[in-house]
Amino acid sequence: MDEGQSYHMTPEEFRDWGHRVVDWVAAYWQRVESLPVRSQAQPGAVRSQLPPHPPGHGEGFGALLADLDRVIVPGLSHWQHPSFFAYFPSNVSGPSVLAELLASGLGVQGMSWITSPACTELETHVMDWLVEMLGLPEGFLSTSDGGGVIQDTASSAALCALLAARERASGLETDRLGCDRRLVAYASTQAHSSIEKGVRVAGLGQQNLRLVEVDERLAMRPEALAAAMAADRERGLVPCFVTATIGTTSSNAVDPLPAIGPLCRRHGAWLHVDAAMAGTAMLCPEHRHLQAGLEWADSYCFNPHKWMFTNFDCDCFWVADRRALVRALSILPEYLRNQATDSGQVIDYRDWQVPLGRRFRALKLWAVIRHNGVEGLRHHVRAHIALARELAGWIAADPDFELVVDPPLNLVCFRHRGGDAVNQAVMDRLNSSGEMYLSHTRLADRLVLRLCIGQTWTRRPQVEAAWRRIRAAARLLVDGGDRR
Amino acid sequence: MDEGQSYHMTPEEFRDWGHRVVDWVAAYWQRVESLPVRSQAQPGAVRSQLPPHPPGHGEGFGALLADLDRVIVPGLSHWQHPSFFAYFPSNVSGPSVLAELLASGLGVQGMSWITSPACTELETHVMDWLVEMLGLPEGFLSTSDGGGVIQDTASSAALCALLAARERASGLETDRLGCDRRLVAYASTQAHSSIEKGVRVAGLGQQNLRLVEVDERLAMRPEALAAAMAADRERGLVPCFVTATIGTTSSNAVDPLPAIGPLCRRHGAWLHVDAAMAGTAMLCPEHRHLQAGLEWADSYCFNPHKWMFTNFDCDCFWVADRRALVRALSILPEYLRNQATDSGQVIDYRDWQVPLGRRFRALKLWAVIRHNGVEGLRHHVRAHIALARELAGWIAADPDFELVVDPPLNLVCFRHRGGDAVNQAVMDRLNSSGEMYLSHTRLADRLVLRLCIGQTWTRRPQVEAAWRRIRAAARLLVDGGDRR
Repeated sequence: MDEGQSYHMTPEEFRDWGHRVVDWVAAYWQRVESLPVRSQAQPGAVRSQLPPHPPGHGEGFGALLADLDRVIVPGLSHWQHPSFFAYFPSNVSGPSVLAELLASGLGVQGMSWITSPACTELETHVMDWLVEMLGLPEGFLSTSDGGGVIQDTASSAALCALLAARERASGLETDRLGCDRRLVAYASTQAHSSIEKGVRVAGLGQQNLRLVEVDERLAMRPEALAAAMAADRERGLVPCFVTATIGTTSSNAVDPLPAIGPLCRRHGAWLHVDAAMAGTAMLCPEHRHLQAGLEWADSYCFNPHKWMFTNFDCDCFWVADRRALVRALSILPEYLRNQATDSGQVIDYRDWQVPLGRRFRALKLWAVIRHNGVEGLRHHVRAHIALARELAGWIAADPDFELVVDPPLNLVCFRHRGGDAVNQAVMDRLNSSGEMYLSHTRLADRLVLRLCIGQTWTRRPQVEAAWRRIRAAARLLVDGGDRR
Repeated sequence: MDEGQSYHMTPEEFRDWGHRVVDWVAAYWQRVESLPVRSQAQPGAVRSQLPPHPPGHGEGFGALLADLDRVIVPGLSHWQHPSFFAYFPSNVSGPSVLAELLASGLGVQGMSWITSPACTELETHVMDWLVEMLGLPEGFLSTSDGGGVIQDTASSAALCALLAARERASGLETDRLGCDRRLVAYASTQAHSSIEKGVRVAGLGQQNLRLVEVDERLAMRPEALAAAMAADRERGLVPCFVTATIGTTSSNAVDPLPAIGPLCRRHGAWLHVDAAMAGTAMLCPEHRHLQAGLEWADSYCFNPHKWMFTNFDCDCFWVADRRALVRALSILPEYLRNQATDSGQVIDYRDWQVPLGRRFRALKLWAVIRHNGVEGLRHHVRAHIALARELAGWIAADPDFELVVDPPLNLVCFRHRGGDAVNQAVMDRLNSSGEMYLSHTRLADRLVLRLCIGQTWTRRPQVEAAWRRIRAAARLLVDGGDRR
């Protein structure tokens, strides 16, 4: 080994430290339930424990592991705690983490087919597998005119869909000349904030996003969408993009695709369907009625990194017409030209996304699917949904609480009947306790508690304990004179 | 363990398989030099070996590892091969890969401070460390008005900079009303393709990107930039964004910031500096003259995932005025509201990027910096640059070859004097051989070979062998009657 090599960790050292890091992760998963779910750290507490200047000389990996335990872990909110019920989950599993390790070690780039053919082909392959696994339209298969690609997040998927829509509607004029303030996008008032962010990023302008009203089940009213599109046409504007959500963030509401699809077709608007969270449930045929009408969609995405045991980031995004997407996003400087690309026989995924570089994310999807099999994945998803229904039953039976919507899947929205202040105080108390972590939203102008059951290791005991804690916190607040 | 758990990999199984995966990666690094650098696979070869349907039932992780060896590895182009000289490198190292493993296992989300305080605070901290390590302007420190954030790629960093520039120039009108085709962006003809892609994504339109001509060293001509900006003003357009590159992709050319900066200031245009590859060299004070004038920059990025031994993805992006960035990208739906955010005391990095979710990428930067120390990192970078200079000397001394530019850092651009066809044939032969991998570009309308020395394990023997192989391939083609 030459002198230069000596600063690098050798393969032998990597093996040794690698075993210890694997053991650290395994032990972390075993002890995570003993840690406070939401970090108890105050702003600045973590930084104050770190040296102000970078080290001039290297140190052993053991020092980092020691600081991980001492400084970092107490500053984390533990998304893999089985009592993590906040936001949407971002669950992990062993096979996924190991495949991510393989991808990191291989360190290949999947920007073009030629830069690592297997990286592209495995991705195309598992994306085709998922079409079958989720009962998606055959038009999304790579063997049709469509195809799938892994994005980092549903935000990026929505942005790519919007860019394809923008160019389809303007005949590539926007791409060439710039936006002209006539293109309009639509989503329900319940759509994820990433849709608004995408509309702003893509230069359409926030004023050209119509937030369409919802019905009592918080699903988009198709007649309101129809009216908005017609009014915009009347004013000389161009309806170009509609997002429908299967499983909204606030309440898991499902927009009615069978009614929305024909409206989009009539106006030539691109229909993007966002099933970031709920998409995983479509592994189970009994839930596929929720995606009825998906054959109208121009694009669709769901996040295995939420509920399908695949560590972040991994968003699966399909389009029905891959040429429309590639036209909006392709760029080919001389230094990326190669014979395979010129032949037209291969997929270059750089033209399916905004960034150029890309990791080998298909490996972790492949690992998760193979480890669990379709039946194993269904088993886990059904267990979570059954727990959510059980919890919903307990809430509905309690006179002090009300269920805000009947939970279609694994998200339970409810509130104490004592009003917003009580609900806020219940949440703050529970989250500060470190025993569980839930989050909130506002529906019909009322503060609503959200409890989502999707962490890999969440089982009945954690859900039972959560309900016990919620009731106890409320009782203490309402009856204990501590009502704020 | 309950029935549901039984489908999941247990912590014990994770430990066992984890050790084997670590060993697999270590062994891969030890044997990668024996594999063909560029994959020899034909289109479809990988997919044809994969089962057409997903497995109904799960299988052991060993089956996946077996298929990794049998199907995937032969389909990869090996970016961690020490004879990988193509494109720009995307190098890895042990500490980085282990920290990525920790991040995967922890599985926390850093979208808001509250969702994992340490994830945000460690990121802010190492970004401040890097300001010191690279000799960047103090205005980029989080303790000033600026600050740093980790993006996935330089493409995304450029897009964020452009969005901030767009909103600053239009007084947030674009964000609200949409683009109006009056905003103009500038970059040299040598700027990375991601700048054009960003301009298209952000809705400015390709026609509003001026590709400014370069001088004989392939650096932007500031007088040409000045003329273009003045002409656009004259026509009622609004110069809003200039990208200057330190180390262009084609030839590592350096745009003159001291001349470009004042022009940007005069027109109120945002100056973004892209040092994706070359930024790592600024660890060494002797190269910092290349970033002279950086105090004019509104934003700056470089990629530790290229040359700083940090596995992809990891782009470091700084702004001098964080409020301008946050104004362009912030969004706060009810379900993300929390007391820490409302207090204004914390950074929520979701407002510094396009996607919402984010991994704990700071861990790997922390690990790389601590393992190597500043001196160790300098040592590696200096070794690569010394090799590039040595190779440049050999090329300059060979009558059959010419150096196209004097290599400022670790990228050597050269060509055989026999013309484009010979150079193309030399490259094709070498890349097809699997012994080494280099790439090409076009400069002054001539095909130029690019050989970049930046893979972690590249040492003198690989560079010597590369030069031997290049000369041999050329001799065979030119003298062997095989000239195509």
